[in-house]
Amino acid sequence: MKLLEDRILRDGLVMEGDVLKVDGFLNHQMDVILLEEMGKEFLRLYNDCGVNKILTIEASGIGIACFTAQAFGCPLVFAKKSKTRNIAGDVYSVDVVSYTHGNVSHVIVSRNYLLPTDRVLIVDDFLANGAALGGLIELCGQAGATVVGAGIAIEKAYQPGGKLIRDRGIRVESLARVAAMDPVSGVTFC
Amino acid sequence: MKLLEDRILRDGLVMEGDVLKVDGFLNHQMDVILLEEMGKEFLRLYNDCGVNKILTIEASGIGIACFTAQAFGCPLVFAKKSKTRNIAGDVYSVDVVSYTHGNVSHVIVSRNYLLPTDRVLIVDDFLANGAALGGLIELCGQAGATVVGAGIAIEKAYQPGGKLIRDRGIRVESLARVAAMDPVSGVTFC
Repeated sequence: MKLLEDRILRDGLVMEGDVLKVDGFLNHQMDVILLEEMGKEFLRLYNDCGVNKILTIEASGIGIACFTAQAFGCPLVFAKKSKTRNIAGDVYSVDVVSYTHGNVSHVIVSRNYLLPTDRVLIVDDFLANGAALGGLIELCGQAGATVVGAGIAIEKAYQPGGKLIRDRGIRVESLARVAAMDPVSGVTFC
Repeated sequence: MKLLEDRILRDGLVMEGDVLKVDGFLNHQMDVILLEEMGKEFLRLYNDCGVNKILTIEASGIGIACFTAQAFGCPLVFAKKSKTRNIAGDVYSVDVVSYTHGNVSHVIVSRNYLLPTDRVLIVDDFLANGAALGGLIELCGQAGATVVGAGIAIEKAYQPGGKLIRDRGIRVESLARVAAMDPVSGVTFC
């Protein structure tokens, strides 16, 4: 998606430690005009797939998921990162390892809001190792819901997550696929 | 706002421990049609106030903030709850006590995204003791930004937060003000 790629080139910042800082428009301050366009692009890509629910994970996926849900005219659900494992039994849950933060999150979704009849589009801001996306797919599996596919803002295509998920037969559409990046030469896209 | 009050009466659930469960439409699963209408209502209330930024706190405020920002045609920023206090010095920060969760969050906003020229509408899903809202006001103060007011989905009007903030001369508009609630008789509004 040229609009997003151009914005990354203009306002993104490559930091040491394989970090692409896009917090001026995507995941701290949010440019809602851009997010609206991203939502419409996911609708274009997944139109006629019967999507009736958008699923994301807190916190930085919520903005994109809101405007994707608006484009599809369906509700969204965000999975919560729980500090305590000892929670009421009315949730689906999975442990997700964050490579960025070096910790494990216990991620939950209420059983009321993920149903066997749901056709789910999973949305998130980044795809790198695929840990978060894999966790959300697992939650859908526990619910018996159908994963129509994933809509990712920025995929680090040089990391294994995208291939791992696609090799499982799950459709993944990323609006910007980073081929390589470093603090000196910046970002190049696939 | 009748639309929100009716929805709370229909789908909200009063639990033991002063908890109003609205996670089917507001803060876990989100009804984007409702959130859009809430954003438009905040625009109606704060039109002509020169609002150029929406500020909220992760995670459950983000959805409302997204559609409020869309209504105002301005960006939003969500304050982050940081696990570590030892963070880079380019943030404003404040400690917020959560009465619900019984813990203290270190809440931060990047200095880049809260400016002395900003006229900020603070948005959140709940106002009870006013701890989170007070923290967000404090962050605006650190930045020298102007707080135009607060837009709250649900105010527990029998708790002290709303009066505390209004007594400081800050405008607070709540779309649903709960006068009383309990698991047997349900919710009554002001």
